[in-house]
Amino acid sequence: MIHRMGILIVWSMMYQSCAIAQSEQTADDAFMIQSIHKAALTEGKAYEWLTHLSEGIGGRLAGSIAAMDAIQYTQTCLENLTLDRVWLQPCQVPYWERGSKEMVLIKQNGRRPERMLNALALGNSGPTSPGGIDGTIIEVRSLEEVELLGDKVAGGVVFFNRPMDPGEYHTFHAYGKAVDQRVYGPAKAAQYGAIAAIVRSMTTRLDDTPHTGVTLYPETVDPIPALAISTNDAEWLSAELKAGYQRDVHIETSCHHHGMTDSYNVIGEIRGSLYPDEIILVGGHLDSWDVGGGAHDDGAGCVQSMDVLNLLNVIGYKPKRTIRCVLFMNEENGLGGGMAYARLAKDNQEFHLAAIESDAGGFTPRGFSFEADGEVFPSYFKKLNQWLPLLEPYGIQFHAGGSGADIGPLKPMKGLLAGLRPDSQRYFDYHHTELDRIDAVHPRELALGAAAMTSLVYLIDRYGLDHQPTGTR
Amino acid sequence: MIHRMGILIVWSMMYQSCAIAQSEQTADDAFMIQSIHKAALTEGKAYEWLTHLSEGIGGRLAGSIAAMDAIQYTQTCLENLTLDRVWLQPCQVPYWERGSKEMVLIKQNGRRPERMLNALALGNSGPTSPGGIDGTIIEVRSLEEVELLGDKVAGGVVFFNRPMDPGEYHTFHAYGKAVDQRVYGPAKAAQYGAIAAIVRSMTTRLDDTPHTGVTLYPETVDPIPALAISTNDAEWLSAELKAGYQRDVHIETSCHHHGMTDSYNVIGEIRGSLYPDEIILVGGHLDSWDVGGGAHDDGAGCVQSMDVLNLLNVIGYKPKRTIRCVLFMNEENGLGGGMAYARLAKDNQEFHLAAIESDAGGFTPRGFSFEADGEVFPSYFKKLNQWLPLLEPYGIQFHAGGSGADIGPLKPMKGLLAGLRPDSQRYFDYHHTELDRIDAVHPRELALGAAAMTSLVYLIDRYGLDHQPTGTR
Repeated sequence: MIHRMGILIVWSMMYQSCAIAQSEQTADDAFMIQSIHKAALTEGKAYEWLTHLSEGIGGRLAGSIAAMDAIQYTQTCLENLTLDRVWLQPCQVPYWERGSKEMVLIKQNGRRPERMLNALALGNSGPTSPGGIDGTIIEVRSLEEVELLGDKVAGGVVFFNRPMDPGEYHTFHAYGKAVDQRVYGPAKAAQYGAIAAIVRSMTTRLDDTPHTGVTLYPETVDPIPALAISTNDAEWLSAELKAGYQRDVHIETSCHHHGMTDSYNVIGEIRGSLYPDEIILVGGHLDSWDVGGGAHDDGAGCVQSMDVLNLLNVIGYKPKRTIRCVLFMNEENGLGGGMAYARLAKDNQEFHLAAIESDAGGFTPRGFSFEADGEVFPSYFKKLNQWLPLLEPYGIQFHAGGSGADIGPLKPMKGLLAGLRPDSQRYFDYHHTELDRIDAVHPRELALGAAAMTSLVYLIDRYGLDHQPTGTR
Repeated sequence: MIHRMGILIVWSMMYQSCAIAQSEQTADDAFMIQSIHKAALTEGKAYEWLTHLSEGIGGRLAGSIAAMDAIQYTQTCLENLTLDRVWLQPCQVPYWERGSKEMVLIKQNGRRPERMLNALALGNSGPTSPGGIDGTIIEVRSLEEVELLGDKVAGGVVFFNRPMDPGEYHTFHAYGKAVDQRVYGPAKAAQYGAIAAIVRSMTTRLDDTPHTGVTLYPETVDPIPALAISTNDAEWLSAELKAGYQRDVHIETSCHHHGMTDSYNVIGEIRGSLYPDEIILVGGHLDSWDVGGGAHDDGAGCVQSMDVLNLLNVIGYKPKRTIRCVLFMNEENGLGGGMAYARLAKDNQEFHLAAIESDAGGFTPRGFSFEADGEVFPSYFKKLNQWLPLLEPYGIQFHAGGSGADIGPLKPMKGLLAGLRPDSQRYFDYHHTELDRIDAVHPRELALGAAAMTSLVYLIDRYGLDHQPTGTR
């Protein structure tokens, strides 16, 4: 695109002035939100923090030494900001370890060659016996298909291969429609006597990268080995089976479940000058899967939340309400941090006017998704929509919908819950893989997420939410 | 982010249903637009075409052999679609060649070391004498500063070093406020007797990659050598000068201006079934700078425009109006293609109901910017805004503003002009550099741009624009 200076400047001025012209708020708010964005892009610390978190520390599954390093590092970062209080909040988390590198080997069968698959054991899954296990692959597309096969899967290795739909605009929707295979598939297979399960990776891409994630076993089911394989490998294996070849697999994993252990949420806050008992929470989860650097999931949400406190300081805004950053532990495989936080908040009769989570990647923000306990939601959403003209110039839309896993347990306390919704088109290229590293994060896109969160915090702090619940404080 | 299936599905359903609930259009339109997006993500050809255009052919400045290769390749691609007509439209373009690799060497000065700068000659700029030229660096921040210095720049090398503002949310606005240095700076320096000019690259990043682009000389000024240097080099050089050291530079370039030559716009169309004389144009520019692969600028816009015709075929939509894809030649350094197209359209009394250009990168689409001749614009924009609820679920916003350089000459003919506005945060990492290659483009993001354009074409074709101008047909 060539320069068209006149046009560009006029376009940009018209664009920016919309916030003022269309809004019921003052020009002052538009100026504040512009200042927040400028500060995020030039004085934000998110990218610097994330570089250390994802590369210096790396993957940090709850209970691991790396998770403890991340706790100490972020505590220090928060202490280096000018805050009123920084502390660690204890919680209990499971500690699962992958052990040595997994092996999934499709064995030679006559003239059909052997092939080593790109695989990652799923979180919570059990180990094979030391020499590995061997079985015949049985491909299915759904949990229901396992039920229909019934005892026919006994002794076999069930291969869940229903793809994420690449034709879905909303990648999280495509994920939601496929991930039952990973979360509940291995337990279903175990119920019918399968000796292991392999699951097609949760991504719309065709590549060689396996995507791990949690799988769940009811207490009545003994965990079996369960692994994700790359989509290219899944396509190949499926083609082999469709061509009529029996394919047997040798699997070795050495995962270990250490049981429950101590860990912490990391918390920092600026105390409100007028209404210190009304808390506006911003947060993400500090744990990540053990592979990769947990850059998008969810280092990004942590450093953006920390940066909200930094940016309020940079622009010199003194909040009336308490602004609290919470880095939750153990979102990926237990939610120990989120549940401990909500329990304590209830015990201490804390009132969270709003809680905003960022846990959908560090990409350009596209909006927020809001929820609240039924009766209070309409008045909250009406108030929020009055502010929309101030945020639309920054590409923000508002939706009713889910918020975040860690703040979900706060819902009965009737505050507003919000989730940052960044662009999601690239998210499942990296999600739960070794590729989720700092080089997959763009500094400006990350910073704009922090700016969007800070802008929303500013508006809620300045104007409150009309129908504040009573009897919960 | 862990699975929260229930929430995700409900959220996504609510999200998608907005289009139907809020719109004055029918559920049928929402379904068509969903089908267009699905088709783009699963049967679109944009990424495949772009891979050949940017990697198989590469940089393709107007007049070059590569530009002719690109003309032939895209003509063949269009011929392989089921269209009513594909043709080449002649135009005249300048042919400028970079010649051998540029050299910008800051010479040793006492204990200050020499340093070779990362540089690219600017398009239109002249060569040095064969052995190169030597002069003292004079740093300025603006064209006005050159005027103030006046004759003091005579015999020197003027160094334009005002950065693009990284605090601007709109990167194109930051570009618009800095690019006068590149476009008009060298001519200004030449006017006052400077022997060469170097310009800080147009990007907010600090890196080692120089960004080329056009510079303009009035007929009264003899072109002097002019080059862009990387931002890291600009920072270093400025620090040297601020520390009080005189720095002299040796520059060698061998650029050559071959004068005007023949070239072509590439055009394909589906003829309208009811109103064939009403044209809806989609386009981008086929030429690019000679370095890199011209993937975002503007291979992306070309393949998206071509894909509009493909996608209409895929979903089986037979347009009432003529849908025409135009790949313009010579946007980067002359606009020969755009001007020839508009001239012929006028001579042939063609009526362009709408023209939509994509020339801001192949990133996730965020909206469209619309313009039209003053009197007709308000009714157009009113009509467009009725359709917005159908496109908002796909992250599309509408703005009044500029459209595109190539379609600009059509404006007096009173049709609607539109520019696709993708996310711009990463654009100036790649713009006019060797990094603008296929690996900087995400297949889903590219496809969604084609889907947004196709959706808008579908709506304009189906419903028309209320206040169609009369007397221009």
